[in-house]
Amino acid sequence: MVEGDVAPQVQEDDDEEDDETEELPVEPPTEESHPGYEYIQQEGDTEAKIELGEQLYFDPRISETGTISCNTCHNVMEGGDDSRPTAMGVHGQTGPVNSPTVWNSGFHHTQFWDGRADTLADQAEGPIVADVEMGMPDHEAALDRVRAVDGYVEQYEEVYGDEVESDDPEDLVTLEHTVDAIAAYERTLVTPNSSYDQYVEGDADALTEQQLDGMESFQELGCQSCHSGPMFSGQWDDPESGEGVYQRHPTFEDNPQCEEYVEEYDLMENPGRAGVTDDEADEYMYKVPTLRNVEHTAPYMHTGEVPTLEEAVRVMATCQLDEEPSDEEVEDITAFLTSLTGEYPEQEMTRLPAPSGESMIPADADAEFEDIEEEPEEDTDQVEADGGDGIPGMTIATAVIALAIATATALVGYTRRLDE
Amino acid sequence: MVEGDVAPQVQEDDDEEDDETEELPVEPPTEESHPGYEYIQQEGDTEAKIELGEQLYFDPRISETGTISCNTCHNVMEGGDDSRPTAMGVHGQTGPVNSPTVWNSGFHHTQFWDGRADTLADQAEGPIVADVEMGMPDHEAALDRVRAVDGYVEQYEEVYGDEVESDDPEDLVTLEHTVDAIAAYERTLVTPNSSYDQYVEGDADALTEQQLDGMESFQELGCQSCHSGPMFSGQWDDPESGEGVYQRHPTFEDNPQCEEYVEEYDLMENPGRAGVTDDEADEYMYKVPTLRNVEHTAPYMHTGEVPTLEEAVRVMATCQLDEEPSDEEVEDITAFLTSLTGEYPEQEMTRLPAPSGESMIPADADAEFEDIEEEPEEDTDQVEADGGDGIPGMTIATAVIALAIATATALVGYTRRLDE
Repeated sequence: MVEGDVAPQVQEDDDEEDDETEELPVEPPTEESHPGYEYIQQEGDTEAKIELGEQLYFDPRISETGTISCNTCHNVMEGGDDSRPTAMGVHGQTGPVNSPTVWNSGFHHTQFWDGRADTLADQAEGPIVADVEMGMPDHEAALDRVRAVDGYVEQYEEVYGDEVESDDPEDLVTLEHTVDAIAAYERTLVTPNSSYDQYVEGDADALTEQQLDGMESFQELGCQSCHSGPMFSGQWDDPESGEGVYQRHPTFEDNPQCEEYVEEYDLMENPGRAGVTDDEADEYMYKVPTLRNVEHTAPYMHTGEVPTLEEAVRVMATCQLDEEPSDEEVEDITAFLTSLTGEYPEQEMTRLPAPSGESMIPADADAEFEDIEEEPEEDTDQVEADGGDGIPGMTIATAVIALAIATATALVGYTRRLDE
Repeated sequence: MVEGDVAPQVQEDDDEEDDETEELPVEPPTEESHPGYEYIQQEGDTEAKIELGEQLYFDPRISETGTISCNTCHNVMEGGDDSRPTAMGVHGQTGPVNSPTVWNSGFHHTQFWDGRADTLADQAEGPIVADVEMGMPDHEAALDRVRAVDGYVEQYEEVYGDEVESDDPEDLVTLEHTVDAIAAYERTLVTPNSSYDQYVEGDADALTEQQLDGMESFQELGCQSCHSGPMFSGQWDDPESGEGVYQRHPTFEDNPQCEEYVEEYDLMENPGRAGVTDDEADEYMYKVPTLRNVEHTAPYMHTGEVPTLEEAVRVMATCQLDEEPSDEEVEDITAFLTSLTGEYPEQEMTRLPAPSGESMIPADADAEFEDIEEEPEEDTDQVEADGGDGIPGMTIATAVIALAIATATALVGYTRRLDE
């Protein structure tokens, strides 16, 4: 764990070749390196809880179709995301924004692009019941799937049994405990010791010449005005949970080049934080995302439509800083950003506790959009009450379309070549 | 590795409590226990090749939408399957048959329910380009995704470089090498030391009284006539690759109770092996599946519509053996089958090599059924040439439906509540 000022220092080692490096070529853009797991670890993050959280994180059986887990969209075997423009959930449906990385997400001070969850635990509640993600009709239905597995119930009892003084699965396997365990696992997903960290900790040779040039350009252009702090995601002075750093994107939408980007990458299709606060001042405001491991999270932007990191640098320079970076500057900054890739910790592959001889996924789980067809009114209300996250009043049309899709999919599925 | 006759013996241990067990209560149904990895390991199954195969096995980026990997339907964190009636691939499409387990699949002497692949490597070719699974338009497109990742190319070079004497990604990242590596990984998926194995190896206490009773009923009813050998999947006398054991299912379709099962569980919806051989004699013939870890692979049968293991035992006794087992027999046999659950080996979670700063999944990967719309004639021919695995002549209709789905999905996606 690194706190406070950690000015770059010349590494004191016995390697004679390095002894001549007396001064660092440039100042690093932040004064702290990457804090470790200890920084975000919470009391009660026991091994048993982390293991339970990991199992839940990787368990697709908690989704409507049994195919989507947290890891589907936030793949820890990759850059903590899904390599896609926007996430794909049950029935091949896609959401409107790019999946943020789960790596180092424990350091964020707010969750989701629009900051509608304060904590990792709050965040984990959403996707389970989101129609375009895990698609469960409600949280109880998801918890019932978990309760059906004896192995899970035993683990919940081990982790939470003392707290609730009960061995009733209804008391043990609650939403609160479930997201608490998932968050405990997610906090362990920390990538230390990037080249940048090594540099800040005193190894002046950890960055290439191009990366150092890129670091200078990063400062000069002003990228740090938003991407500051050890996570390169904004303020970092022990903020409260829920206090994310937001920035309007695009800021300079009238810049002609930015206008083109807005058009090409659909940058203004989504209201941003205004969708949560219903406040016009929050229109197009987005959480400043971390730049840690950013080379592994293509494609970019909240719409996920920017295909390369170089292009992302161009878009940000133009739309956020009203600058026109040279090709060399873009290449250098991109090189610098790759120095933010940390070490992914080794993990044991988890085993999901299995029910004995019983089917977990109902045979009719493939009936698409069932809940919408059954409860159109209720759904519309919910959308409205949730602060305009969707477009109300489309429910009947949606049901008709849904039925068409269900029928068409069945037909197409029947006519297509099988390979299982 | 266990070969030849391994008659059950009384365990020679120092535990006084066990010393009195002089004779085993019943003979086990096979004379061999579970062979180990050594039995199926092939020359050239190096650690590097196995690691590469594991990465490819877990890599969803090789699918059209970037969401489906081998592991999606054959989840090694579960019973090696997907807990679903039938597999769900790209765009939420489902196939016609239940995903078989990947655990111990290296011991099978043919692959797929209808035996249309002789080896694990042959099997791995299919799902990559199956419309209802990974959905790539052709193998080259999948290989191009792999070639785009420098880390992969380096690993192929390490594993196959000497063989091809080239460092050209086109020569290294071939379909042959890709499925060879995946098969090498799959061969490692062996679950030894089940209670049954311990029993056969001489520990008379490894099975409960009920499991022993179940073992007797298993023999008496005749389950072993198909489920013989150490894998409980038929003949086991060093058969050639491709020589699977098939059995007509249902065999006694005229049994009134079986008629009900056929109706309820759609047991005769699919032509079985006749779909491959085009021979009427092969109608409703299916590969005899392993019973190893069967308690973890619900739901059951090739249609995946039988929800519990007990019900599966009833269906098989009725439709395959023309027997009417008592409730007690069914419960006992089910208990015996749980003794076939082995130890899942611990595995390190793999890391997928990532491209630096570049999007791997094209932004238009969500345009559904693209290839069909583009090349209707060619697809129809292909289906026909493939021996009637699909229904030809539906291509134009399919394209229209596909377009409707694509449009409808876009609309629905847009109107639905977002949670990312």
